[in-house]
Amino acid sequence: MSFSFEVFETDPTGGRRGRLRTPHGTIETPAFMPVGTAATVKGLSQETLEELGAQILLANTYHLYLRPGHELIRRSGGLHRFMAWPRAILTDSGGYQVFSLSELCKIDDVGVRFRSHLDGSEHLLTPEKAAEIQLALGSDIAMVLDECIETPAPRPVAEAALRRTTAWARRAREYFLLRAGQEGYPAQWQFGIVQGATYADLRRESARQLLELDFPGYAVGGLAVGEPHEVTCEMATEVGALLPAERPRYLMGVGRPEQLPDYVACGMDMMDCVLPTRAARHACLYTTEGRVLIRNARYAEDARPIDPRCSCRVCQRYTRAYLRHLFASGEITAAVLATHHNVHFYLDTMRQIREAIYFGQLVNFAAELRARYVAGPA
Amino acid sequence: MSFSFEVFETDPTGGRRGRLRTPHGTIETPAFMPVGTAATVKGLSQETLEELGAQILLANTYHLYLRPGHELIRRSGGLHRFMAWPRAILTDSGGYQVFSLSELCKIDDVGVRFRSHLDGSEHLLTPEKAAEIQLALGSDIAMVLDECIETPAPRPVAEAALRRTTAWARRAREYFLLRAGQEGYPAQWQFGIVQGATYADLRRESARQLLELDFPGYAVGGLAVGEPHEVTCEMATEVGALLPAERPRYLMGVGRPEQLPDYVACGMDMMDCVLPTRAARHACLYTTEGRVLIRNARYAEDARPIDPRCSCRVCQRYTRAYLRHLFASGEITAAVLATHHNVHFYLDTMRQIREAIYFGQLVNFAAELRARYVAGPA
Repeated sequence: MSFSFEVFETDPTGGRRGRLRTPHGTIETPAFMPVGTAATVKGLSQETLEELGAQILLANTYHLYLRPGHELIRRSGGLHRFMAWPRAILTDSGGYQVFSLSELCKIDDVGVRFRSHLDGSEHLLTPEKAAEIQLALGSDIAMVLDECIETPAPRPVAEAALRRTTAWARRAREYFLLRAGQEGYPAQWQFGIVQGATYADLRRESARQLLELDFPGYAVGGLAVGEPHEVTCEMATEVGALLPAERPRYLMGVGRPEQLPDYVACGMDMMDCVLPTRAARHACLYTTEGRVLIRNARYAEDARPIDPRCSCRVCQRYTRAYLRHLFASGEITAAVLATHHNVHFYLDTMRQIREAIYFGQLVNFAAELRARYVAGPA
Repeated sequence: MSFSFEVFETDPTGGRRGRLRTPHGTIETPAFMPVGTAATVKGLSQETLEELGAQILLANTYHLYLRPGHELIRRSGGLHRFMAWPRAILTDSGGYQVFSLSELCKIDDVGVRFRSHLDGSEHLLTPEKAAEIQLALGSDIAMVLDECIETPAPRPVAEAALRRTTAWARRAREYFLLRAGQEGYPAQWQFGIVQGATYADLRRESARQLLELDFPGYAVGGLAVGEPHEVTCEMATEVGALLPAERPRYLMGVGRPEQLPDYVACGMDMMDCVLPTRAARHACLYTTEGRVLIRNARYAEDARPIDPRCSCRVCQRYTRAYLRHLFASGEITAAVLATHHNVHFYLDTMRQIREAIYFGQLVNFAAELRARYVAGPA
């Protein structure tokens, strides 16, 4: 077994520093996973991601299933080989995109029927199918299919989704355990996903049910979808308290830079978010002093780097004035440089969080980050 | 004076190998200049251009004059500093884009009146203004404003444009010589542009008139705009024969990869073309075996690099199948990787041309390139 996870430092807050070993390298946790939707982090080459120190990427099962197709990727030798990324990959189940992107999405106990947003073709995603697709992709970590509900959710809706999520997790686990390690199937870890909306007791119940299925790691899903930050943290803490300390915990789809230390303090080890990459393409740059909306006229002749405190390649070389010009001119290079900086900023924030845990200073780091951040850019 | 040019090897064909020294580094000639229209080669960072070995870029005066404005760039310390490119830059006069991009373009002996394609604002570009803008940009090599005519051109039209081009060149030269080297003005070389359409005697006449103005280098303009390749070469050769051997010669706006050795054999030292960058964004990749239109379904599972003979970073890592997937998915990274490869291909072809001249083998290299190229991709 080439997978393992160990926690080797704990902060007074509950923040954990650890190491997740996979057949595609070791991930220092807490870890931020840049999102490579269609087997590419938009605008960055894999060389650049290595240079930035990304140890794991997230790729979207829904997108890759529709295009180029998981069987094509399987025939290519798996996603690592297809996209020439030798480090670790986590794939989601596809469920979230089915619910948010596809048309005519119909859900029942069997699974989700939907039409592709690309060509309108009909598809059925079941817990077994989601597991099989991710085995074909050969990601290091696969997620079970869960039911994603809108928020805020009435309690009966949250209860029904919780029941279905557990039932699907059981089917996904069974399917996975029959195949994992068999001839033609890759080594993979499959994670369960705790649901329960913003009801603490439902979150606990969901966690207890999933623990019976003995996943090597657990995710907390359906959070940071509009509820107050404090509620997100409360739910994550509730769940974290029930999860086995020696297994990795993944808080899905978070978050804003100044929130990252809080999630780590809730005991979370892994996070992913499209924010650094998507915001970059919209000319929103993250800095230690807050967001810089680089299209603003005030930056037209600003000869400073995006963030004077930043050590990234973009900040070493280019001025705000130049970045602004690239965005004003609609240049591809604008997205390339902005994404480079933002992904560096997120990965670097995580590096600082890991260091803060080492010194038992996570609370102070979180406070400092928030104080500087809210101050806004010069 | 930190500029110089020397030819230190000549091929039996007339191809020349030389060195162009500028305050921003030495350019080995024959040289290909990637086009960085708006102070960026679309999709490539300046680090990547350095890695690819680009020694000089071309930037477009028309675009930079309109946005962000030449005075802003002057205040920023010039174009090198603005775009963080420490190597050499050549700027065109803006004339070609005024004629091809702007609206309501009206020409008379004073200059060209036009409306911006961005906001419809009215502008007047004169030979003096074109020189002043380029001094503000601080490029290493500036071009005089010339009259660009449609082709094929009736002889009287070509004659009139020739006369105006010479008159404008004289005004540009006078303006330039009064300012160059003065306080606040950068060191710069100004090149004249030989016109005369496809009439050999007019080309010779244009060259003779410009020689009187004693430019440190000469360009051949208005070619490769639809006439047969043989005619382009014939005109370039006619002009080349009249130009002083010890000054650089720049054939503007060429060309296709398999044509580059021919232009060098005509005695040309510098070339620029949007083809490698523009074609890359349209999924057209240049290889030693010809063009690979990577969107083609035949590449869907092709595990080979774009060009098995290519040493570029993209070909060392990624497959045709992956590139095709990126283009099919409309990913920014597609343009980034394809542009990287194509610019490498052009710069590498020029490296091979310089080597061929060293061994006196330019004719053989041209024949080999054309034979391989026409064979088409495997």
